[in-house]
Amino acid sequence: MIVVLKQDVDEKQRDHLREWLEEQGLSVHISEGEFCSVLGLIGDTGKLDVELIESLDIVETVKQVSDPFKSANRKFHPEDTIISIGNLKLGKGNFQIIAGPCSIESSEQICQVAEEVQAAGATILRGGAYKPRTSPYDFQGLRAEGLELLLEAKKRTGMPIITELMNVNHLPKFEEVDIIQIGARNMQNHEMLKELGKIRKPILLKRGLANTLKELLMSAEYIMAGGNEEVILCERGIRTFETYTRNTLDLSAIPALRELTHLPIVVDPSHATGIARMVPPMALAAVAAGADGLMIEVHNNPAKALCDGAQSLTPEQFKVLADKIFRISEVLKEK
Amino acid sequence: MIVVLKQDVDEKQRDHLREWLEEQGLSVHISEGEFCSVLGLIGDTGKLDVELIESLDIVETVKQVSDPFKSANRKFHPEDTIISIGNLKLGKGNFQIIAGPCSIESSEQICQVAEEVQAAGATILRGGAYKPRTSPYDFQGLRAEGLELLLEAKKRTGMPIITELMNVNHLPKFEEVDIIQIGARNMQNHEMLKELGKIRKPILLKRGLANTLKELLMSAEYIMAGGNEEVILCERGIRTFETYTRNTLDLSAIPALRELTHLPIVVDPSHATGIARMVPPMALAAVAAGADGLMIEVHNNPAKALCDGAQSLTPEQFKVLADKIFRISEVLKEK
Amino acid sequence: MIVVLKQDVDEKQRDHLREWLEEQGLSVHISEGEFCSVLGLIGDTGKLDVELIESLDIVETVKQVSDPFKSANRKFHPEDTIISIGNLKLGKGNFQIIAGPCSIESSEQICQVAEEVQAAGATILRGGAYKPRTSPYDFQGLRAEGLELLLEAKKRTGMPIITELMNVNHLPKFEEVDIIQIGARNMQNHEMLKELGKIRKPILLKRGLANTLKELLMSAEYIMAGGNEEVILCERGIRTFETYTRNTLDLSAIPALRELTHLPIVVDPSHATGIARMVPPMALAAVAAGADGLMIEVHNNPAKALCDGAQSLTPEQFKVLADKIFRISEVLKEK
Amino acid sequence: MIVVLKQDVDEKQRDHLREWLEEQGLSVHISEGEFCSVLGLIGDTGKLDVELIESLDIVETVKQVSDPFKSANRKFHPEDTIISIGNLKLGKGNFQIIAGPCSIESSEQICQVAEEVQAAGATILRGGAYKPRTSPYDFQGLRAEGLELLLEAKKRTGMPIITELMNVNHLPKFEEVDIIQIGARNMQNHEMLKELGKIRKPILLKRGLANTLKELLMSAEYIMAGGNEEVILCERGIRTFETYTRNTLDLSAIPALRELTHLPIVVDPSHATGIARMVPPMALAAVAAGADGLMIEVHNNPAKALCDGAQSLTPEQFKVLADKIFRISEVLKEK
Repeated sequence: MIVVLKQDVDEKQRDHLREWLEEQGLSVHISEGEFCSVLGLIGDTGKLDVELIESLDIVETVKQVSDPFKSANRKFHPEDTIISIGNLKLGKGNFQIIAGPCSIESSEQICQVAEEVQAAGATILRGGAYKPRTSPYDFQGLRAEGLELLLEAKKRTGMPIITELMNVNHLPKFEEVDIIQIGARNMQNHEMLKELGKIRKPILLKRGLANTLKELLMSAEYIMAGGNEEVILCERGIRTFETYTRNTLDLSAIPALRELTHLPIVVDPSHATGIARMVPPMALAAVAAGADGLMIEVHNNPAKALCDGAQSLTPEQFKVLADKIFRISEVLKEK
Repeated sequence: MIVVLKQDVDEKQRDHLREWLEEQGLSVHISEGEFCSVLGLIGDTGKLDVELIESLDIVETVKQVSDPFKSANRKFHPEDTIISIGNLKLGKGNFQIIAGPCSIESSEQICQVAEEVQAAGATILRGGAYKPRTSPYDFQGLRAEGLELLLEAKKRTGMPIITELMNVNHLPKFEEVDIIQIGARNMQNHEMLKELGKIRKPILLKRGLANTLKELLMSAEYIMAGGNEEVILCERGIRTFETYTRNTLDLSAIPALRELTHLPIVVDPSHATGIARMVPPMALAAVAAGADGLMIEVHNNPAKALCDGAQSLTPEQFKVLADKIFRISEVLKEK
Repeated sequence: MIVVLKQDVDEKQRDHLREWLEEQGLSVHISEGEFCSVLGLIGDTGKLDVELIESLDIVETVKQVSDPFKSANRKFHPEDTIISIGNLKLGKGNFQIIAGPCSIESSEQICQVAEEVQAAGATILRGGAYKPRTSPYDFQGLRAEGLELLLEAKKRTGMPIITELMNVNHLPKFEEVDIIQIGARNMQNHEMLKELGKIRKPILLKRGLANTLKELLMSAEYIMAGGNEEVILCERGIRTFETYTRNTLDLSAIPALRELTHLPIVVDPSHATGIARMVPPMALAAVAAGADGLMIEVHNNPAKALCDGAQSLTPEQFKVLADKIFRISEVLKEK
Repeated sequence: MIVVLKQDVDEKQRDHLREWLEEQGLSVHISEGEFCSVLGLIGDTGKLDVELIESLDIVETVKQVSDPFKSANRKFHPEDTIISIGNLKLGKGNFQIIAGPCSIESSEQICQVAEEVQAAGATILRGGAYKPRTSPYDFQGLRAEGLELLLEAKKRTGMPIITELMNVNHLPKFEEVDIIQIGARNMQNHEMLKELGKIRKPILLKRGLANTLKELLMSAEYIMAGGNEEVILCERGIRTFETYTRNTLDLSAIPALRELTHLPIVVDPSHATGIARMVPPMALAAVAAGADGLMIEVHNNPAKALCDGAQSLTPEQFKVLADKIFRISEVLKEK
């Protein structure tokens, strides 16, 4: 870490800072420049609070040389991670499509959608049982009952399943769930992340609406630091000033995360745009940008199930899209 | 609610939508305009999912006429709410200053700060026991032990106390805490908000980094819908493109929330700016804009306790600031 | 346009507003709802200032039914516009790659890059003569001299050229330029846009850093209202809280603009990301999302010309990318 | 400037970079750390393009030690600048209120407003003649005729005047204007800024909707580098995700700019919020945060002149506000 001091800094204050840094077990090299002094810190700076040092009166700026995430960092793990989900693999060239309805409504609905998306090429089934809703008066999902129905569809089709966890106390019910999804609103629910570090099951971690890529990796690190290294990162749109789409899908997150980490990267174009007719172009764009997987909402009767339908594709639309996804995926693999 | 349909909409689709809306128990008035049809919905539209109706192919836009928050809404509760905290009152002209250290470090530290801020005019003591940190490798607070020390300072000074809750399972330990703080990262932790609705204790709810004022009120509504109506709203800065300050303090939130809700509004300039020397001007600005209270970090030895010190005022600086706060507060009260 | 009034509005104020609206030549239909009155305005509401009506005390909200841009609006021009540039066509399935160096440095440099990108499949040559720079102390481009060199490269290769106009008074020098580029910082330089409406030459209009898609279309409308209908829209990244890339490329702008307008849409991944190694994935993503063209920076010696090099591809890298671009473009055309 | 190289960088590439930097006239000190090498650059780094060096493959990050603005920089001009406007002074404790209508409509209107705001304590008269409008179909101001009317009001009241310049070619008409206003949309119209550097007249430069404080200072630097050092900075709200107010007024810009520069700082709460009833609290907050002046819209008949009225105060409302402004201003001056 490099700490740049202001011009004409009081020597006492500088010495005070140096001593304090040395007390933290660091060695401090001072080099005097024309306009400023620079402190080079050698040792384990991971525990220093950069933001706070930066705000000291005598400090001009602080520059972190190494990122504070270790387990998720590509520097220390140059090889892409492959995550096993049942018989499937995700990451390092292994591409998978997750598909299914936003909310689970009935046994018939979830099983029928499952069969249709499976026939079209989806390999993992999604379905919402516990639903995060902005309003307390909105439908909160079928909850435990929905989970039962999803497990039934798993049995019927053999597809591994993914569903969202909103409360750590529900974990015992998630034993047969193959991937646990953590929603954008809980990306920095640190107490929950710590608990997820104690289990051994893949976690799909969605990027928060206003979180940087490095914060996403720090949240992954909370899980990995506990011993659970099977984290899948998911870009699902960030909040910007533009209101035409629900959020702004940040596809540059794919090549950026690829540099920073070895973890697999999945994109959710359905929640990012909130509009079914925008899902196909953004799904194709995500594949072209190098995503390891996609998560797409599909509903067998969007017209009737009005509330689910708006951002969901029909199984027919999904089939057309999946074909194009696989064709573009092939183009990328050509050398 | 008003639903504007697109031009030249297929009649069948329109009828389908109308029927579906009527099935939800609403009466639907259709008026034909030059460029579009407009559906006026009468009845309880609170359960309709606006975003999703908006994304239907035949729908141009949807306009909500009444806000979906009921308990927090000034329309239905025109009078300002006053919240009692021990012998203190907050709201409707009752102004309070919350002050104390970011992290509780020792009995001596918390008690000494408490006495000094009390002498300067602070009426409520803050102190962090459980700390939300971006990195799993950063200091996570003294946790239960810190809570004990805070309670000791409460006994010593008689000041009511506020501290952050990060995990619903910790609630039993918070019995003697006067105000429970919910941090920005947990503003949409809905499962936690529901639990807070079941208790009877004031909740200070911080606005999320990327949450609109209406979303803040929907989160307050989660608590109030459960029966706990003692919610204090806290503006603490939003995330924008500007990086000079840690976040951008949105003081227009004060007059905006004043219009929308009857709940008391508190401002935290310490976390918003992250820089001690910016706290006084922003604290004074918040008072001038009409805040009901302030939450300010004060540390008795910011130089030594380096990590706490950066955004903390010394007790001396706090005293100078508090004097000005009271002077501006008086100017506002003059008719 | 629909104006929703607040509950329990004073009748006098309501009548005053209605009269004023009628004075503007509109007919006003009032319908009384359970919670509010709604005014439906029939007639030419294009000249009303929505934002200002919205802020009247008695008004709850205003909803525009039709967008205020007419010439650029797909509703009134359902067919995609095709723009002719020399012998080339852009739009409605006609895909073109614009390539060339950020700054023109010498005759040798621009001519060599031109020949290399042409050989690889680029059809339009870009090169900066007048350069917008944040700092007055940075290199401002070769200006008029650079323009001469670009024209020389045009003659040599036969490629049509595009370069940025920063000052309306320079227009006479741009006679042989095939497409005039208006940079993001000048997107709302209305006096310049009006002048561009008077000429007859394609304009490539870049989206401002913090401008919505509708504002981009309003700026296109400034040009088109003057009689110049040859506007090409360019997405080049928006400003968000994320700092890993220079800006956040908003690829959902492609399907969104496709719905709103008939004008061709081009994407500039070089300026959006600011990092050469991120250009290929984002270029491919833009094609997959349906862009009509790409604008890519290529430099024949990025290592030497350090300042240009950072976000520029080498001709070799460009060739590899162009091949993939054409392959993905073919996949999209398959039915 | 400090350039941090990546780990295990190829020595050839490093030498290449060092040589290139030395060719730019800089001396380069290399220090090897545990995890990286650091290049310290001594000399005039003002002309280096930081962003571009940062994006080189071998570079981890770049840290600028000194800000690239020289003339506007407080480091080199520790004393606050005082700007003379007629007999008035602005800056360094000299506080002024600018007031007047958004658009000039008639001689009677502008003169009457002028007299009323003057009586209430405003010292500088504002009025829009050339109006920036998002839509080409909106009212564009009375233009040259409006300017005449404003000059008439200046004669009548003796108040210095400020109005917006949108086109450098209009400059000859602005000779008797006391302060030239540059709007947010033209903050980075560099060709215009350069021309303004050649005249000798105070310029009020508004912060762009999505521009950082440092970019605002770089734009001021464009004017100052030309020799015109009389620049007044104006905060008028930035674009964020929040839509309740038109923009988000960033009052932390006041203490932040105070640290960075010696130039006077004015706040425009009318355009920032777009809502008349929010102007008073935000105006008072700006004063409490330490602004050198305010710019407030006042209209003598907001109800009739509907379009102007929405964000304008009546003269009566302005009088009440001005009284409180002066009272808070006094509190701040008390030691």
